[in-house]
Amino acid sequence: MDLWFTETTGKAGLTLQVKETLFRGKSEFQDVAVLDTYEFGRMLTLDGLVMTTERDEFVYHEMIAHVPMTAHPAPKRVLVVGGGDGGTVREVLRHPTVTQVDLCEIDGMVIEQSKKWLPTIAGTLDDPRVTIHVRDAVAFMAEQTNAYDVILIDSTDPIGPGEGLFTEAFYRDCLRALTADGILAAQTESPFSMQAEFSRAYSKLFKVFPIVSCYYGVIPTYPGHLWTWSFCSKAHGPFAQLEHKDLTALEASSRYYNRELHRGAFALPSYVRRMLDEIKQGTYAPPALA
Amino acid sequence: MDLWFTETTGKAGLTLQVKETLFRGKSEFQDVAVLDTYEFGRMLTLDGLVMTTERDEFVYHEMIAHVPMTAHPAPKRVLVVGGGDGGTVREVLRHPTVTQVDLCEIDGMVIEQSKKWLPTIAGTLDDPRVTIHVRDAVAFMAEQTNAYDVILIDSTDPIGPGEGLFTEAFYRDCLRALTADGILAAQTESPFSMQAEFSRAYSKLFKVFPIVSCYYGVIPTYPGHLWTWSFCSKAHGPFAQLEHKDLTALEASSRYYNRELHRGAFALPSYVRRMLDEIKQGTYAPPALA
Repeated sequence: MDLWFTETTGKAGLTLQVKETLFRGKSEFQDVAVLDTYEFGRMLTLDGLVMTTERDEFVYHEMIAHVPMTAHPAPKRVLVVGGGDGGTVREVLRHPTVTQVDLCEIDGMVIEQSKKWLPTIAGTLDDPRVTIHVRDAVAFMAEQTNAYDVILIDSTDPIGPGEGLFTEAFYRDCLRALTADGILAAQTESPFSMQAEFSRAYSKLFKVFPIVSCYYGVIPTYPGHLWTWSFCSKAHGPFAQLEHKDLTALEASSRYYNRELHRGAFALPSYVRRMLDEIKQGTYAPPALA
Repeated sequence: MDLWFTETTGKAGLTLQVKETLFRGKSEFQDVAVLDTYEFGRMLTLDGLVMTTERDEFVYHEMIAHVPMTAHPAPKRVLVVGGGDGGTVREVLRHPTVTQVDLCEIDGMVIEQSKKWLPTIAGTLDDPRVTIHVRDAVAFMAEQTNAYDVILIDSTDPIGPGEGLFTEAFYRDCLRALTADGILAAQTESPFSMQAEFSRAYSKLFKVFPIVSCYYGVIPTYPGHLWTWSFCSKAHGPFAQLEHKDLTALEASSRYYNRELHRGAFALPSYVRRMLDEIKQGTYAPPALA
């Protein structure tokens, strides 16, 4: 059988030949599937959208974790929001100052199936420093004050279960949940193909955080491929620690991240710079659909 | 009718919904088509592979041109090899020192159809500084000595008509065709999805040119999406002129390129760095197909 998985933004998309469907289930929140693909290995999808694949997951997980974790002088307590596949937790645990990682994922099925089918990604969820909270991060965050040095928002797109994680109220709760010199990184979609979502996220982040920057990486299985994360901070800029920390071990175990790339990832293409300038000034209008 | 164009590397690829086929013809060298797509506007394909689209062409054309052109103190004579769509010539002409641009494209049909259907890309091919040579670049280059300040190899993939543009003999002819402080940039495929082609190109470039670096950009319609170009030079490094030149006009007219991005584009992800180290040492082996 010639079986293809296709994800489109309506008029354009990605298509991948599939060896077999390893799991398909419907949780309380979404359609969860694990497919084995020829070119990207095993792949987790939620509501038909690619979340992570064995072959390119390193880009996303290294970039969401190592940029803020390196920018903080000594991150001890870290919260990962979403991220039930475990990849972000795995990268956070590579930082030796870390004593506590809380994972707040709404969907237990994502965690269970990732542990079962994606052990190279989810394998460190059993680490003794990790506590898993299977609940809505909006309610969880409302209870936290001065609790985390670093918060990583490893969410789905701002539709369905991920929607509440892109609101100004949620970002204000994150601000309060951070320590006085805390840093937050959030996945903020692709400014090439998801302009409305990118714009909505930054228009709110600019209002809430004292320091807001945007950085990028290249993700072959995500729409637009130029993917971004926000760097939101109370005190530290993105490069303050960069020349002081010993990154030898981190660079040796990383496949994407390194010291020079950390700096280069903030050197945005001009079209992204201009979008951010306009979003900050309140003048940006996403293009109408074709 | 629901019409989709799909380009795969066998097991994975891009799919785009098509409004209409504007042109389809068979030249002496290849199948040439211009399709009108919903999400990427008009698109030129050769032998079924995406060459350029109205929506994302700026990334490729700005990056192949502005990095070497900015690195050279005062480029006057420029050769574009391939590039029959005219996009690279358009970007070269933005540099005010330029007095002569030669375009050597093997396939006249590509030029004609680009002028007809892609005027925003091919529109400057009629500029008086431009001379078009419709012939094989391998033969053309063998005749040139000390003739160009900058050579840009804007080729197809190293199969079919583009194959001869990836050989060591051709690179040696380019070296001779460059002036004493000349710079060459060549498109060198994606190290994520076209490892064999990437490796073959750099193993030869490292042998021929005194200075060889690699830089990247993000191209939504090209396989792997992390696309690379080589920076090959006789005397100037990639950043020597970067802080000295007035880039105000160039930055204002560019949608991707800017001064900070020029530097950041050389800060490669670790997996690409390691590939290049191994290619240089002669120890790199591309992964076997799944």
